[in-house]
Amino acid sequence: MKDTKVISASVIARLPRYYRFLCELQNRGVVRISSKELSKTMGLTASQIRQDFNCFGGFGQQGYGYNVSQLRQEMAEILGLNAPKTAILIGAGNLGMAIARGMNFEDMGFRLTAVFDVDKKKLNQQLHGAEIRDAAELDDYCRTFRPDMAVLCLPEEQAAETVKLLINAGVNSFWNFSHCDVRRLCPDEAGANVHLSHSLMTLSYIMKNREDR
Amino acid sequence: MKDTKVISASVIARLPRYYRFLCELQNRGVVRISSKELSKTMGLTASQIRQDFNCFGGFGQQGYGYNVSQLRQEMAEILGLNAPKTAILIGAGNLGMAIARGMNFEDMGFRLTAVFDVDKKKLNQQLHGAEIRDAAELDDYCRTFRPDMAVLCLPEEQAAETVKLLINAGVNSFWNFSHCDVRRLCPDEAGANVHLSHSLMTLSYIMKNREDR
Repeated sequence: MKDTKVISASVIARLPRYYRFLCELQNRGVVRISSKELSKTMGLTASQIRQDFNCFGGFGQQGYGYNVSQLRQEMAEILGLNAPKTAILIGAGNLGMAIARGMNFEDMGFRLTAVFDVDKKKLNQQLHGAEIRDAAELDDYCRTFRPDMAVLCLPEEQAAETVKLLINAGVNSFWNFSHCDVRRLCPDEAGANVHLSHSLMTLSYIMKNREDR
Repeated sequence: MKDTKVISASVIARLPRYYRFLCELQNRGVVRISSKELSKTMGLTASQIRQDFNCFGGFGQQGYGYNVSQLRQEMAEILGLNAPKTAILIGAGNLGMAIARGMNFEDMGFRLTAVFDVDKKKLNQQLHGAEIRDAAELDDYCRTFRPDMAVLCLPEEQAAETVKLLINAGVNSFWNFSHCDVRRLCPDEAGANVHLSHSLMTLSYIMKNREDR
């Protein structure tokens, strides 16, 4: 264990938003930002932002605010985006194709090294620089190349079995788009379940509560 | 304006998680849950859950905990999931196909009524019960059928123009998968931007900070 401090899930959930916002600021040429402006745009109180940053030792300077480039680098470091990691993607259906083609894995330190599918017609195609391989080779591939992470874009009914195979073959991190809850299958492994339905529910809430209704 | 109480973004962000968790409990036949158990599984303190629920008038009973079915219904009501809403989807590429086929829109009160694409080869196909139509008909369709919401699965460079067309045609809610920030284009409209990169960054953080490294 690197650090005895436990960072709460809600702080961790805010880190990508900070990072994205800082990237946008930097792209717009902004050099520094006051905690007031930062809090306004993030929709948080200045005190909450200070509390969040204090979890990581605190940044910023009384009266100056935050240096955008420096804070962005700190966030990238905290999020581990600078650490090189390999990833494989399983399931080259519509979602898998969209993820492989549309995600800038490199921006987050990931390199996509292989894609796996059961459909033999898809084999040998290239997806975002990675070859589509036969799902039957998955076990061998993982034991040989030890990918750091697997993106799961396969149907729920195949997901559980594949996750077990992957864990046995040494893969211990998952970015999961299937409806199967990976963290329940393997509580010791790292996993990020992507619940697209959550954002649709949030939209439903906004639609119900908007002022112009 | 229905209610003068402003609910914070972080409370709203937790509602879908409460709802999903309650659905799971109900599917498992759980009738009631103590605030302690609820807080443990949600990774929140019992006091935070009470505070969240108090935003909506409070639920649960001292010493009894929460009635799962009742709380699930309350959450569905708060989230507006019971309100019938129509949706169209724009962009029948890989991501659009995956969203149309994989999302249970109906569970959240949405009915997918049409899909639009510029590719004439895709026209007249059915996607999740909705016909793929020519993007050239989008304006007419929206003025005639007034869909409540549009799912945006189109490339960033086409998104901004399409959003403007949609707003002019009376559409005012967006579930946005494009990299274009809809809320900036039209701050008055309801929008939920889906940032897939956020969950990948969170995974990167977990991988960096896991105890077994």
